[in-house]
Amino acid sequence: MASVTVVHRIELRSDNAAGVAPEVLAAVAAADHGSAMAYGGDQLTGRLHELVTETFGATTVSVWPVSTGTAANSLALAAMCPPWGAVLCHESAHILRNEGGATSMFTGGAVMRGVAGPHARIDPEALRAAIADTTPGDPHHSQPRVLSLTCPSDMGTVYTPEQVATLASVARSHGLRVHLDGARLANAIVADGVTPAALTVGAGLDVFSLGSIKNGGMSADAIVCLDPSLDEELLYRTKRAGHVASKMRYASAQLIAHLTDGLWLRLAERANTAMAVLVGGLSAEGVEFVETPAANMAFLRAETPLADALDLAGLDFYRISDTVIRFVTSWQTSDDDARDAAARWARASASVAR
Amino acid sequence: MASVTVVHRIELRSDNAAGVAPEVLAAVAAADHGSAMAYGGDQLTGRLHELVTETFGATTVSVWPVSTGTAANSLALAAMCPPWGAVLCHESAHILRNEGGATSMFTGGAVMRGVAGPHARIDPEALRAAIADTTPGDPHHSQPRVLSLTCPSDMGTVYTPEQVATLASVARSHGLRVHLDGARLANAIVADGVTPAALTVGAGLDVFSLGSIKNGGMSADAIVCLDPSLDEELLYRTKRAGHVASKMRYASAQLIAHLTDGLWLRLAERANTAMAVLVGGLSAEGVEFVETPAANMAFLRAETPLADALDLAGLDFYRISDTVIRFVTSWQTSDDDARDAAARWARASASVAR
Amino acid sequence: MASVTVVHRIELRSDNAAGVAPEVLAAVAAADHGSAMAYGGDQLTGRLHELVTETFGATTVSVWPVSTGTAANSLALAAMCPPWGAVLCHESAHILRNEGGATSMFTGGAVMRGVAGPHARIDPEALRAAIADTTPGDPHHSQPRVLSLTCPSDMGTVYTPEQVATLASVARSHGLRVHLDGARLANAIVADGVTPAALTVGAGLDVFSLGSIKNGGMSADAIVCLDPSLDEELLYRTKRAGHVASKMRYASAQLIAHLTDGLWLRLAERANTAMAVLVGGLSAEGVEFVETPAANMAFLRAETPLADALDLAGLDFYRISDTVIRFVTSWQTSDDDARDAAARWARASASVAR
Amino acid sequence: MASVTVVHRIELRSDNAAGVAPEVLAAVAAADHGSAMAYGGDQLTGRLHELVTETFGATTVSVWPVSTGTAANSLALAAMCPPWGAVLCHESAHILRNEGGATSMFTGGAVMRGVAGPHARIDPEALRAAIADTTPGDPHHSQPRVLSLTCPSDMGTVYTPEQVATLASVARSHGLRVHLDGARLANAIVADGVTPAALTVGAGLDVFSLGSIKNGGMSADAIVCLDPSLDEELLYRTKRAGHVASKMRYASAQLIAHLTDGLWLRLAERANTAMAVLVGGLSAEGVEFVETPAANMAFLRAETPLADALDLAGLDFYRISDTVIRFVTSWQTSDDDARDAAARWARASASVAR
Repeated sequence: MASVTVVHRIELRSDNAAGVAPEVLAAVAAADHGSAMAYGGDQLTGRLHELVTETFGATTVSVWPVSTGTAANSLALAAMCPPWGAVLCHESAHILRNEGGATSMFTGGAVMRGVAGPHARIDPEALRAAIADTTPGDPHHSQPRVLSLTCPSDMGTVYTPEQVATLASVARSHGLRVHLDGARLANAIVADGVTPAALTVGAGLDVFSLGSIKNGGMSADAIVCLDPSLDEELLYRTKRAGHVASKMRYASAQLIAHLTDGLWLRLAERANTAMAVLVGGLSAEGVEFVETPAANMAFLRAETPLADALDLAGLDFYRISDTVIRFVTSWQTSDDDARDAAARWARASASVAR
Repeated sequence: MASVTVVHRIELRSDNAAGVAPEVLAAVAAADHGSAMAYGGDQLTGRLHELVTETFGATTVSVWPVSTGTAANSLALAAMCPPWGAVLCHESAHILRNEGGATSMFTGGAVMRGVAGPHARIDPEALRAAIADTTPGDPHHSQPRVLSLTCPSDMGTVYTPEQVATLASVARSHGLRVHLDGARLANAIVADGVTPAALTVGAGLDVFSLGSIKNGGMSADAIVCLDPSLDEELLYRTKRAGHVASKMRYASAQLIAHLTDGLWLRLAERANTAMAVLVGGLSAEGVEFVETPAANMAFLRAETPLADALDLAGLDFYRISDTVIRFVTSWQTSDDDARDAAARWARASASVAR
Repeated sequence: MASVTVVHRIELRSDNAAGVAPEVLAAVAAADHGSAMAYGGDQLTGRLHELVTETFGATTVSVWPVSTGTAANSLALAAMCPPWGAVLCHESAHILRNEGGATSMFTGGAVMRGVAGPHARIDPEALRAAIADTTPGDPHHSQPRVLSLTCPSDMGTVYTPEQVATLASVARSHGLRVHLDGARLANAIVADGVTPAALTVGAGLDVFSLGSIKNGGMSADAIVCLDPSLDEELLYRTKRAGHVASKMRYASAQLIAHLTDGLWLRLAERANTAMAVLVGGLSAEGVEFVETPAANMAFLRAETPLADALDLAGLDFYRISDTVIRFVTSWQTSDDDARDAAARWARASASVAR
Repeated sequence: MASVTVVHRIELRSDNAAGVAPEVLAAVAAADHGSAMAYGGDQLTGRLHELVTETFGATTVSVWPVSTGTAANSLALAAMCPPWGAVLCHESAHILRNEGGATSMFTGGAVMRGVAGPHARIDPEALRAAIADTTPGDPHHSQPRVLSLTCPSDMGTVYTPEQVATLASVARSHGLRVHLDGARLANAIVADGVTPAALTVGAGLDVFSLGSIKNGGMSADAIVCLDPSLDEELLYRTKRAGHVASKMRYASAQLIAHLTDGLWLRLAERANTAMAVLVGGLSAEGVEFVETPAANMAFLRAETPLADALDLAGLDFYRISDTVIRFVTSWQTSDDDARDAAARWARASASVAR
């Protein structure tokens, strides 16, 4: 293995490790002229509301820039779910497994319950069963009040708009509101080949997280709310959570740049394409995927010796367990990097097999 | 009044309305090269820890960048105060009156109690009385566990290091921890003419908020913790509050730029000096101040007709009540603006008197 | 002082220190036959609902037995006030000063704000000012959402129905709900000489605490809710607070006994009368009252030497400060005890004066 | 089926539906003499502390009477687990499935995680895996801080002291505290044939719920704390939850009666024996049990037609699903009732089979 020459390390740990798109950085700099009303009273934040409305084809929409995806998800869910309620989500959902109990805190003790389903997607029958498992009106049991979908899922798969609509319909028929964790929403839209409206407004969501940071943004994600009855809750809850930036124009500028002229979709397309190239290369090597990658995230079988060899070969990635590793591409991952990564896998794999 | 010619409006609403210092913007752009470990595992965040340690002359310190001053205060207080505790602060404190109950939420129901004192500073005797008012060990009463000082205060006055030390000593002798809301910390340090260490580490604080945003920063304030026993609480509480930025390097870069070569003190000096010029000009006009301005904030007596005339004269400011208005200068307020504002006051006042 | 012969100590510490009325104890024993559906599905709890409806002349009412007055107040307020709201109450209110922050906890961080007023009663103008002090829709400030009155107050005074109605009207006109802490409700009704309906339903309350324990009960107070839209909140919140007794029939039996044939009013009348006798005797001695006692509670001026002498003379009472003590009579305080207590005061006072 | 003559209905719904043991009722009446210090300052509560210490052979112990088992569990867990922690319990645990999210509320958003294991007992390997599943110090994940065991389990099985000790040892070696939900503790002690000390203090618990209500008590369960460092948390948390009875003597009297002369164990023995008689009779009929009943609770296979026939035959019970029903015996269930119930099953089963 000593003969492997590493020209540079290839970043596959996370799209969070990537930099900021030039257009976004430029927008931050451009926002910096003169003074502006604080706490969202500025012109850029006003423009952001218009742009989101246009982008998602919604008639009523409110937009709440916050500084992380965790904030976007948990504050939205706190506005949607009473303290004595339960949020149903997939067993692998980020809100259940990776946000440190943020939703339980912000809701005042609501419970998150994992629902099963293949390919990290909730199965409609499992959803019906999970809802039926709780007797309505019985205070012994936290009452299901919100369905939260993650798209792309934490395993790199996506829902189609039809799949979202089906689940939303089941939820709504039992009085649950519908939330979507869209930390990588653009990657899902591109993967599905649909319009932004189709996967959100058209699929029956009440609220969704609009991710920007993982997709070439810097420090602004947003809650997008399609149900005006929740606006009052969001107004007060975002503030008391410390998520209303005083100089909000710099956050709004990032989100505006993202949505302008489809930049967010192009950035996502770049990441998804790089993953497709990588997956193509790896498939040719017989690599086994835990799930077929649909967007910009792949989970692959790799025992520790192989993982060590990949590390030595200059790949940066996360080890999920002793047998599974994760690759994530970003808007900064070039096709050359993707091809190179596959080639390095081939060499590393061969070296381990020796 | 029609003869008043307004060349430009003068921004005196808030230092939050000001822009970002060029050095801070440049640092954000400079942080944008290559990829970096997310969630604070990057080199810049490591450098920030060193720089804060140097700046405040502390031996043990931890730094937690967050996106707002509300987050900095309330998460720090939640780490310091049990749910059944009480936070003592001045009756005019920002945490009591302007953060939407953030501290009560993040603590799980701790109570904030206002303590009196002239010039928006807690009186040591009033502090002793407030502590004595609660029977230790009696669960009918939320137990005082934290003293929180605001410096500069919400009325624009400051504590000296000696005043902080006296209050901290009273608090500590009764088992209370000591917090300082330093949303405008640099303005206080400059006003006091002391070192950063003197007003913080040297005065006996356990934790303080290090404000940057109001002082030419963009989107990063920080919690600075001098008590290592609180680090575990801060680690988990900042994350589940959605206040651990994934691309933290861009926040840390802002704070580093702020602290490097004394930029933060120079920016604060600019704001304070502009206020001094403004106060000088207004005093010559016989304007009455609610408190003598010590830093970059002034509260002035102005009936509604005068306030209307000031508005017409091109001054932007906040109306606190029917008789009081607030002027805040920032790093962007020039001495010329300050002089011009005083001149416009004179003309507006004369026009009202007619 | 050694010549004072104490036949027995007279209990004036609290009506909580008194025993249980025989009718209540008998009802508990009588409830103990056969088995009964748990968690309020029993016949006695059903009967309680009817009896409360009759007693208060309400058309829609729900009743929630809980085990303490703190639970009754704080769970009701949690159902009435959003986490980002504020509960306005008198500066001396029990919920503000004596419940360990229960309301802040159960609401998820709502804030309690004290409002001034003479005789421990909120002044309508002060209420208007407190409401006006918060800008509606400004998330920097916890929004007033509930007015909570305490009757009798923590200083032993009472509101008339007209006074309650006036305050309720002010509250309602600004969108606040109205709560009454009736831990000693019967004592107030008797003191006012009105019907139970007049001070509650008729005065414009939404929810009130129906105290029983301090008035000859054992372990059951209740939340009485006149606004059906709050029932769902109360259903789930009482349960998850651990305040839905599995063998609820024993709690409901206590409350039924209390309300049957006016027992609760007779018990309160006994306590109030004993206080009147005591006050008459003390007034003849020139004792100074902090407030004129209206129900069964008195606050009196007594320096420490006198308080010591009263203790030695066989009176049990609470010391509020170095100069004020509190006497509370209960349904078990006889007129003879009241006269005796006054006589002992006279002797103790004389001994101190020597 | 019309020929079935029902002499009386047999109560098998819950031990909560049973009445109160005569000794307990008598103790409540006997507690009612004279006045007594409120909030636990009375002599009976003092005596309760001594008696619990003797009963469990502990050197340091504190006892906190509360009014429900939900309160006992959730307040204990809130004292034991930080808001950012996780409580590990069996997938079928009462705290996870039947307390309306009480623990998530009182902890300020801690998470409950179900761990698998046959016979409703946590498997030590599954516990190790659940702990290992969370990276220590990674704030993305709620950190396991408490192991909570339920004994008897919600399926009617029990842990032996050795099994508890093994799990406690695993927990402790990873820094977790150990809690036991003993809502039916006496039934488990009797089933195990061990001393009270063996299953609690001797098995390595930190805190346990001491159930009384389901076992012939009326309105008092208790938290028993063996770790003095938690006492301060319990002092304040019980009060602000409204679970410190003002007339605590009536609660303490119930618990004293329960523990005096082994009454609690005799009551539990009665319930367990009745279940054994019932199980014996049913087994002879070939009835299938979901788990082998160890204490006073049985889960049995019964399709809806059979369940309907059992109802018609005069048995009161709960239907868990379309195929499973639950029988619970209490201290009031006679052996004759148990035999009769089995006989009625036989007849009902035969009628359905026809």
